[in-house]
Amino acid sequence: MALPVLDFWFDFASTYSYLAAMRIGPLAQKAEVRVRFRPFLLGPIFKAQGWSTSPFNLYPAKGRHMWRDLERSCAELELAFRRPDPFPQNSLVAARVALVGLDQPWGEAFCRAIFRAQFADGRRIDDTAAIGDIRRDLSSTPRARSRRLNPMQSKRGCGRKPRRRSGSASSVRRASRPSTANCFWGNDRLESALRWARAAAARG
Amino acid sequence: MALPVLDFWFDFASTYSYLAAMRIGPLAQKAEVRVRFRPFLLGPIFKAQGWSTSPFNLYPAKGRHMWRDLERSCAELELAFRRPDPFPQNSLVAARVALVGLDQPWGEAFCRAIFRAQFADGRRIDDTAAIGDIRRDLSSTPRARSRRLNPMQSKRGCGRKPRRRSGSASSVRRASRPSTANCFWGNDRLESALRWARAAAARG
Repeated sequence: MALPVLDFWFDFASTYSYLAAMRIGPLAQKAEVRVRFRPFLLGPIFKAQGWSTSPFNLYPAKGRHMWRDLERSCAELELAFRRPDPFPQNSLVAARVALVGLDQPWGEAFCRAIFRAQFADGRRIDDTAAIGDIRRDLSSTPRARSRRLNPMQSKRGCGRKPRRRSGSASSVRRASRPSTANCFWGNDRLESALRWARAAAARG
Repeated sequence: MALPVLDFWFDFASTYSYLAAMRIGPLAQKAEVRVRFRPFLLGPIFKAQGWSTSPFNLYPAKGRHMWRDLERSCAELELAFRRPDPFPQNSLVAARVALVGLDQPWGEAFCRAIFRAQFADGRRIDDTAAIGDIRRDLSSTPRARSRRLNPMQSKRGCGRKPRRRSGSASSVRRASRPSTANCFWGNDRLESALRWARAAAARG
């Protein structure tokens, strides 16, 4: 029987998406749910709200709390953390490369590498050179090399149906439209979303 | 040795405070942390941000998600839920009565009863008659009667130092001031806050 599917929508510049991206793999495996990484862009949604930047910058008290909360959450999860500068970074190039990679074996590892580069190592992710470096580091690991030589060794690379991909307008519409009654918002709802995906699949 | 103390700041009209108020007792007992219920008023904080009502009303997409999320969270926690109408309700009278009760044995039970009346039973909590009804219901339970007759039977009523109480300006200042570097925000951080209180006490 096919596993239940959960779409994991995220922006590479989103702070709590870092936590979710690093947690979702093992949790989904345990819950027996197949996760599809879905990078999209928050910028157009912010603009539609009349915001010129992240609300964490627009509301300083909200921002101060978020950074402290993120630091504490990383410590609890034993994830490295370094506050990115600048914040937020433009995630368009990273999202475009990820959309290519997610139809190939290296997509999810690339996504995690982008998050780690930005939130653990304090590196820039907002230009093609930076993304190129991260992509090169990734492809020089032994595991990545073996995958590149023989992509069929990667289970995730086999037998998947072609999927429609979009990095801008349509994914933004989908992510923000009110008819998605069972969107779960944020890293804090990861476990609930996985339980929901399982229960929905069981109901048929 | 005295137990570590955690201040639980909440507004009776706050949706996620309903979840936290219903969960905090058993969790704190298990964590061996003493919790102090601290009702305060969100209204002045909203006003200081230029908001005339709850952000859940000002931003309809945020509001829609919150109500759905709250409904799902209540289902997971096996808590009854009914969407309050109107929302938010003025919580001033409830907070004032709670501040009296929290120096007596019936305070925490009263706080939970206010949350249940509003979020489980769909009752009004915004006038003195409604609060009077809830208070009367509470004092007619056998446990409450025995406490009323002999308040010293209640462990929580014994041996506590007098504490400064405030339901408006000063508690609002305290809750919103940036120097409170280890505020934990929301029901989602309840477990983290309890762990933090324990660890902070252990460090001395």
